[in-house]
Amino acid sequence: MSDDPISGGPVSAEFIADLAAASRILAEEGVVDAAGHVSHRHPDASDRYFMSCAMAPALVTPDDIIEFSLDSDPCVAGGRGGSIERFIHGEIYKARPDIKSVVHSHSPSVIPFGLVDTKMQAMFHMAGFLAGGVPVFDIREKFGTTDILVSDGPKGVAFAACLGDKPVVLMRAHGSTACGKTLQDAVFHAVYTEVNARIQHWTMGLSGGGPMAVLDEEEGRLADAVNQGARGRAWDLWRRRVRDDTGW
Amino acid sequence: MSDDPISGGPVSAEFIADLAAASRILAEEGVVDAAGHVSHRHPDASDRYFMSCAMAPALVTPDDIIEFSLDSDPCVAGGRGGSIERFIHGEIYKARPDIKSVVHSHSPSVIPFGLVDTKMQAMFHMAGFLAGGVPVFDIREKFGTTDILVSDGPKGVAFAACLGDKPVVLMRAHGSTACGKTLQDAVFHAVYTEVNARIQHWTMGLSGGGPMAVLDEEEGRLADAVNQGARGRAWDLWRRRVRDDTGW
Amino acid sequence: MSDDPISGGPVSAEFIADLAAASRILAEEGVVDAAGHVSHRHPDASDRYFMSCAMAPALVTPDDIIEFSLDSDPCVAGGRGGSIERFIHGEIYKARPDIKSVVHSHSPSVIPFGLVDTKMQAMFHMAGFLAGGVPVFDIREKFGTTDILVSDGPKGVAFAACLGDKPVVLMRAHGSTACGKTLQDAVFHAVYTEVNARIQHWTMGLSGGGPMAVLDEEEGRLADAVNQGARGRAWDLWRRRVRDDTGW
Amino acid sequence: MSDDPISGGPVSAEFIADLAAASRILAEEGVVDAAGHVSHRHPDASDRYFMSCAMAPALVTPDDIIEFSLDSDPCVAGGRGGSIERFIHGEIYKARPDIKSVVHSHSPSVIPFGLVDTKMQAMFHMAGFLAGGVPVFDIREKFGTTDILVSDGPKGVAFAACLGDKPVVLMRAHGSTACGKTLQDAVFHAVYTEVNARIQHWTMGLSGGGPMAVLDEEEGRLADAVNQGARGRAWDLWRRRVRDDTGW
Repeated sequence: MSDDPISGGPVSAEFIADLAAASRILAEEGVVDAAGHVSHRHPDASDRYFMSCAMAPALVTPDDIIEFSLDSDPCVAGGRGGSIERFIHGEIYKARPDIKSVVHSHSPSVIPFGLVDTKMQAMFHMAGFLAGGVPVFDIREKFGTTDILVSDGPKGVAFAACLGDKPVVLMRAHGSTACGKTLQDAVFHAVYTEVNARIQHWTMGLSGGGPMAVLDEEEGRLADAVNQGARGRAWDLWRRRVRDDTGW
Repeated sequence: MSDDPISGGPVSAEFIADLAAASRILAEEGVVDAAGHVSHRHPDASDRYFMSCAMAPALVTPDDIIEFSLDSDPCVAGGRGGSIERFIHGEIYKARPDIKSVVHSHSPSVIPFGLVDTKMQAMFHMAGFLAGGVPVFDIREKFGTTDILVSDGPKGVAFAACLGDKPVVLMRAHGSTACGKTLQDAVFHAVYTEVNARIQHWTMGLSGGGPMAVLDEEEGRLADAVNQGARGRAWDLWRRRVRDDTGW
Repeated sequence: MSDDPISGGPVSAEFIADLAAASRILAEEGVVDAAGHVSHRHPDASDRYFMSCAMAPALVTPDDIIEFSLDSDPCVAGGRGGSIERFIHGEIYKARPDIKSVVHSHSPSVIPFGLVDTKMQAMFHMAGFLAGGVPVFDIREKFGTTDILVSDGPKGVAFAACLGDKPVVLMRAHGSTACGKTLQDAVFHAVYTEVNARIQHWTMGLSGGGPMAVLDEEEGRLADAVNQGARGRAWDLWRRRVRDDTGW
Repeated sequence: MSDDPISGGPVSAEFIADLAAASRILAEEGVVDAAGHVSHRHPDASDRYFMSCAMAPALVTPDDIIEFSLDSDPCVAGGRGGSIERFIHGEIYKARPDIKSVVHSHSPSVIPFGLVDTKMQAMFHMAGFLAGGVPVFDIREKFGTTDILVSDGPKGVAFAACLGDKPVVLMRAHGSTACGKTLQDAVFHAVYTEVNARIQHWTMGLSGGGPMAVLDEEEGRLADAVNQGARGRAWDLWRRRVRDDTGW
């Protein structure tokens, strides 16, 4: 059933170009390095998504984008292979109909928060989306000793369950995953999770365990609502920086 | 009364070009990212100021500069909109006749000092302007649970009152605002507040709570007076780096 | 006996170009600065290796690559001299037949782990190769007070013995050395040792001496096995970034 | 007597070009920003030195280099003015006949070591020149409350006395000054003082006050002697990076 799924239908060149650009944006902003990936649900077929083949995100162009079923099987058999961790994306799209785009990364400043008891908190209004809590997925709990990767459906299901209804989830000894209702949302969440992590490192260095006047949950909710405009302005900036020779 | 205010009169192309360049300088120096803004009071009309429309500061050109009344209403109705936080600027210009330019930013290394009890202090002579004290504005004190933004006149008034007679004010869970008697002053204050924050993080890491031989208030005042020359040299460097294709 | 060793035979231009490129990659990725070097064992003669002459790694081109015996004597007498620390490479190739490539560097974030009792541990799956332990070589133990450099055969022998069967060894008050079964492996190990060091600094800052859920040895072994694909993708990215004008 | 001193005689265009390039190198390597300066003693007249006029170091070209007496008076009256802190240079040249070049900077990672009781130590062989100790100049001790700057002869004399026979001296709430027997030496000392500071911040974060196996004084002396080659290779790299359009 999951072999050779059929395509959800054609999408615009701009849609594909924006998804490829998002990959380069995440590299440019330091969220991904030689690994990491961003996907987008098919705009007309909620049971399909698009993601690049397995390659360095800084190099992704529209020709590298592949369509997958939510079981993370490619719609064109025999083509280039997808990331071993594409199940992160497929299983989140199954579990969260509201989510249209997913970013997975290994940002160095975020990883520490998946290794210790300290919770990531929202340090400023731009990271208001974190104020509702940031869960940590430890693959050991359900799968024992593994290679750490979310490399099949069952691991993806457990991972998506840990994400719950939140926009961001950390992954022990691995990285993190950010989601959004649009491609712009997901990229914004990924970038500002990284910025917030740096601010929290510095703040905890100053506080020495003392109180920190972080955003509370309601402040976070209100700040996040008003940040929709900031998301668009950030996207305009980032998108322009990675525009390629052909104008995409 | 505040709808459709009339313009304070024409200003030179160089004035507008410098203000747009200041926006790009702040992006280049890492003080602002996709958000933040810089304004300048009208040189001939003290009840008007100029600022870009709501956009990423790295992209601002002279065409993006808008004139506002001190109630932060645009002088040309129906044009592009100003930042939701333009009241930061308008209310400071009302409260502080000596101030001609204002920078608002979310610099990551500065934000921690708005979240903990540790005061920002002047770590070196280039930041002598901080030695008189750096207040912290917590919007909760007067306005309870909000979206954190200084998004209307009353919030701007309270914010300007917290700034008092200082050049820099921190904003809890938000960022900071730097002021100056000239555009060059305000940009210099914004950049060196960021540099000073990084130095203080490192110094406190070394001191482990022990004494730090920071600038005292009188040393800061003397150092700041002699820094006028340094401001000009810094501006020459920064201005050249962001010069655009048309020579501005 | 070790004077004027004969060459192990011609190698492809691509082989030499890749080795020179690896040098520039390490500079680009911040692993080496004005010092440091990377070598590769001769593909057809296991008792020879190639390395640049003594120069800044960012400037290395194919013309700068020299062939050495495992006693670290150049195969062409009277040419440009090799690094004073080339014995690091020669003695590892003698002691470790499985190793084909070696990187020596002074990466600032790695050096602290050679100065204190804290062990470097594997913070995430990309650094799974570190989970088996990272030895520290202190040249004082066998050689007393020295100039710190591994500058002759006996020091190289002691150094290679400290490395043992591991891929990475730290050097007290000096730097570190990373090895691999291929050039890509060695460069990957060098880059991710640096990234892992930064993550560990931040994690220990958060943990305050408390537990850190790092990779255990078996997780590291499994993650490292699956990272072979990641190595290739990383190389593709890095190699493209340093491609020179002639296409190499 | 110190007004209108006569020139020590013509010097080569290459000498002046290298000095101007050193200024741009220090900017490129992050040692100086909008302020800071580097000087070189006249090669044929030990009572004269060359330094740029007061300007941002990143912008210095050969045309900006001025000749001074050791009282820090310019040899050409009525020309562009020198830095207010040129007495740092003149008084060191008087007190230390062995010194031919001086760099003054406000490197952010170095400043903390001038504010706390923690001594800067040599973390690795490239900074062996620091192992003999790094004094801290506190201008308050002799001059009370000042603007912090070494802005006249008497302050320069006290400052040079604090430097003593060392290559580097820190300045409380100000910055640091590095000296050398050649221009290359002074630049190398300035760059690696900055790198060493960063390593020490990270090492002390790990050690938590525990022992650090830094270079001892004799190791430092031996490592520094062998670093002469590294200085040349570093200069080759840095010099090439700032070469200007005219080939200088």
